Amino acid sequence: MAESPSIPKGTRDFSPEISSKRNYIFDTVKSVFKKFAYKQIETPAMENLSTLTGKYGEEGDKLLFKILNSGDFLKKISNEELALRNIKSLTTKISEKGLRYDLTVPLARYVVQHRNEITFPFKRFQIQPVWRADKPQKGRYREFYQCDADIIGSNSILNELEIVQMIDEVFTKLNLKVTIKINNRKLLAGIAERIGYPEKLTQMTVAIDKLDKIGHEKVYEELQKSGFSENSLKLLEPILNISGNFDDQMQCIEKFLGETESGTAGTDEIQQLFNYLNIFKFNNKIELDIKLARGLNYYTGAIFEVVSDEIKIGSICGGGRYDDLTGIFGLKNVSGVGISFGADRIYDVLETLNKFPETITETVKIMFVNFGKKEEKYCLPLLKKLRNKEIPAEIFPDNAKMKKQMKYADANNIPFVAMAGENEISQNKFTIKNMNTGEQQLVTEEELINIISK
Amino acid sequence: MAESPSIPKGTRDFSPEISSKRNYIFDTVKSVFKKFAYKQIETPAMENLSTLTGKYGEEGDKLLFKILNSGDFLKKISNEELALRNIKSLTTKISEKGLRYDLTVPLARYVVQHRNEITFPFKRFQIQPVWRADKPQKGRYREFYQCDADIIGSNSILNELEIVQMIDEVFTKLNLKVTIKINNRKLLAGIAERIGYPEKLTQMTVAIDKLDKIGHEKVYEELQKSGFSENSLKLLEPILNISGNFDDQMQCIEKFLGETESGTAGTDEIQQLFNYLNIFKFNNKIELDIKLARGLNYYTGAIFEVVSDEIKIGSICGGGRYDDLTGIFGLKNVSGVGISFGADRIYDVLETLNKFPETITETVKIMFVNFGKKEEKYCLPLLKKLRNKEIPAEIFPDNAKMKKQMKYADANNIPFVAMAGENEISQNKFTIKNMNTGEQQLVTEEELINIISK
Repeated sequence: MAESPSIPKGTRDFSPEISSKRNYIFDTVKSVFKKFAYKQIETPAMENLSTLTGKYGEEGDKLLFKILNSGDFLKKISNEELALRNIKSLTTKISEKGLRYDLTVPLARYVVQHRNEITFPFKRFQIQPVWRADKPQKGRYREFYQCDADIIGSNSILNELEIVQMIDEVFTKLNLKVTIKINNRKLLAGIAERIGYPEKLTQMTVAIDKLDKIGHEKVYEELQKSGFSENSLKLLEPILNISGNFDDQMQCIEKFLGETESGTAGTDEIQQLFNYLNIFKFNNKIELDIKLARGLNYYTGAIFEVVSDEIKIGSICGGGRYDDLTGIFGLKNVSGVGISFGADRIYDVLETLNKFPETITETVKIMFVNFGKKEEKYCLPLLKKLRNKEIPAEIFPDNAKMKKQMKYADANNIPFVAMAGENEISQNKFTIKNMNTGEQQLVTEEELINIISK
Repeated sequence: MAESPSIPKGTRDFSPEISSKRNYIFDTVKSVFKKFAYKQIETPAMENLSTLTGKYGEEGDKLLFKILNSGDFLKKISNEELALRNIKSLTTKISEKGLRYDLTVPLARYVVQHRNEITFPFKRFQIQPVWRADKPQKGRYREFYQCDADIIGSNSILNELEIVQMIDEVFTKLNLKVTIKINNRKLLAGIAERIGYPEKLTQMTVAIDKLDKIGHEKVYEELQKSGFSENSLKLLEPILNISGNFDDQMQCIEKFLGETESGTAGTDEIQQLFNYLNIFKFNNKIELDIKLARGLNYYTGAIFEVVSDEIKIGSICGGGRYDDLTGIFGLKNVSGVGISFGADRIYDVLETLNKFPETITETVKIMFVNFGKKEEKYCLPLLKKLRNKEIPAEIFPDNAKMKKQMKYADANNIPFVAMAGENEISQNKFTIKNMNTGEQQLVTEEELINIISK
C-alpha cells in the first residue's frame, strides 16, 4: 500500500470519542452563554488581510496563515520586483486573504460593518476555530477553537458580574473546581503612577506577574534592570507583600494609591464589582489578584483569569474589559467586556482528572445482531419503533460472524445488544444482552423498550 | 470614519438570527444522524495539498484555496525558475497546504490514516465548512457547510434503506415535502451496454438527465452529436418513454436490459432496496428515476437525489454508493454509501416558504428593565432564580432611557419584559409585560415564573 496519508503538523483529526468529549465542553459553554442572553454569530474563516494585519503586533502578522490569490498570482508583479525577493512586499501582492487568528478582531470588524443593523448593547458569543502558524508543540496547535462571549456598547459593571457568574456556572456544570482571579488595569496604572513610573506600567506588571513563579528577589532584579529606582521599589513593597481577604487587600491598596486618578477609578470599579459579587453565592473561589497582568496591552478595566484548583496547567479561561475594541476600524468610544474559554486546556483538565461523564461516548443505546435476511426483517420494525421514540439504535448491516458484530458493539460502547433467531421469532420475543454485566434476558418488545429506556 | 471594513467576496457573516436558523437545520440533521448511529468526526480545515490535488479533476484543482508557506516562501526557488513564471509549478513550491474542498476526500484520508483504530463498518457524520474558489454568485459561496453521513466498509443494501429513512425523517422534522429520487449506476451501465455503447455511458446519461429540461428532440440531437447511431437511439426509445409506478418501470427496464451483466446486478440491487422500502411508511414520495445521473464519475451503485415538492430550487440533498472511496489513498476494496444535505439550499427553501418555526429566534424569555441601582438590586435575585431554572433571561445592563431598553427587547424578539419600580418593590412584586399583546400584570415572583414557563 502507498504511504499512509497525513495531515499538516499542528492540526488534528477528532475521532468520534474525542468529538463527543469536545462537544460536551462546547455544549456546556454554549448553554451558559445562551442562558445569559448572549447570541451566536459566525464569521468567515477567511478575512481580508487588510482586516487582520497590524492587529496582533509584528510577531502576530508573521503567524497569520495567508491564502494564495487564485489564478496568475504573479500578474501584478514586474520581473524586477520579483527578482528583489522582498517577501513582505511580495506577500501583500500575491495574497489578499488570511485565516482568522482570533475571534476578537473579527468581532470588531463585524460590529463596525454591521453597526446599523445591531441594537446595542450587543451580546454575542462565537465558537469557531482559529489558525496560527505557531511552532507546534505539546498543547499548542495551529488550528484550535475559541469560545468567546462579549458584550459591546455598555460600561456597566453589571456585565462584569455576569461574566463571573457565567464562569462559575460553566465550571460547576463541568464538575471542575477553579479559582477566578480578578484585577483591574486601572489599579495597576495607579500603582505605576504612585511609584513614579506611569510610563513603565507594562514592565512593572510583567515583572510582578512572575512573583509566584520566581520570587521576590528576582522580581526586584528584573525591575531594577528595567530602570526602576531603589526608592520606587521600596514604595512598591506593600503591594508585593499584599495578603488577606478582599477587604484587607482593598484597605492596603487604597492606602497605597491615595489620590491618584486612575487608582481611584480602579478601586471604585473593583469595589463595585465585589459589591455585586457579594450578593450571590458562588461554587468557586473568587479572588482579587493585584498581580494579575493578563493581556495588558489590550484591556483597560477589569481583568479575569481562571485557573484549575485541581491541576497545574495555566489559565483555562480569561478575559477583561477593553474600552476601544472597534477603534481599529474607525468606530470610537465603544466599550466592551468579554471572556474566552480555552476548550483545549479544559479538555486536558477533564481528561487528566477523568471527569468526562461516562455517558458522553455512549451514543447508541442498542444494536441488533444481524443473523440473516429473515431475522433482519423481524428486527427492522422494532428498530424503527425505537428510533421513533428518539432512542439511538442500529442493526449491524451485514450478516457477519457473531464475533465481529459483538466487537463492533464493544468498540462503539453500545450498552445493549438484541438478538433474534428462530427461537425468539417463534415466541415473538427478543434476547437482550446487557454488555456491561453480560446478563441475558428473553423479553417482549415492550420489556425491551423499558429496559433500555431506564 | 474610515471606510467600513468588509469580508472577502463569496463569504458571509451570520447574524444571531441567521445563526439560529442555520443551527435549526444543523441540529435537525445531526439528531437524525445520531439516532441512526452515525458518529461525529472532525478533520482540520487545512489538508496537505498532496491529499487534495488530483481528486477533483483539473477544474477542481484550480478551485482549491492554497495556503502560502510561512517564512521565506521563495527560498527553494532559483532566480531562473522564478523568472519563468510557471504558476502551476511555482504553486507547488510556495504552498504545501490547502483548504478542505469537500468532506469526502478528508473522509477517505481519515479512514486510511486511522484504519487500525477504526472498527468497521465505520458510520461517521461530519458537519463542517468547505471552501471553493468558485466565482461567487447567487446561492453559490466560497465558504459553505456540508452535512455528510457515510458508512464505510459494508456492502449491505440495508444501508441504502437507512439513508432513505434518514432523508425522510430530516425533511419530515423540517416540515418540508420532498421527493426522494433513486437510481443505480449499474442500470445506466446496462442501458449503455444494451444499445451498444458501453464506453459512452457518461455522454448517454448526461444527455438523458436533461430530458425534463430540454425535451426529447434536443436529447436526441445531443446524443447524435456524441456519436450514437440512429439504431441505438431507436433502441433507447422505451427508456426515454418510461413511466408508471415502480413495478411498471422495473418490468420495462428488465425487459429492456435482458441478460446484460451490470444490468442484472443493477435491477437486483434496486429491487432489494425497494423491497426494504416497502416494509415501511414514508412521509415523502420515493421514486425510481432512471434518468437520474448525479455524480456518475464517482458513484458505482445506488444514486440518491432529493428535490423539494414545494419550490423549484434543484437538488437539496444527494448521495450514493461508491465502491472504492479509499482506493485513492491505497486502501482497496472498501465500499461506502453516503448522503450529503445541502444546508444553504434547505435554508433558502425554509426561508422562502416561511417555514422556520417562530420560536427559533426567541432566544431569551424575559428582560428586566433597568431603573437604577436600587431597582437593579431588587431584580438580580429573581434573574438568578430564573437562570437556575435554565430559563434564558437578562437585565438591561445600563439605566438607559425606557425607550432604548424597550427597543432592545423588541429587536431581540424577547417575549416578556419585567419592570420593578418603587411601587412594585414596596409590594414585593413585578410588573410583567407581554410584548406580543402589550398586556401588563402586577404579579409575584412565582406568578411571573409560571407565566414565562408556559
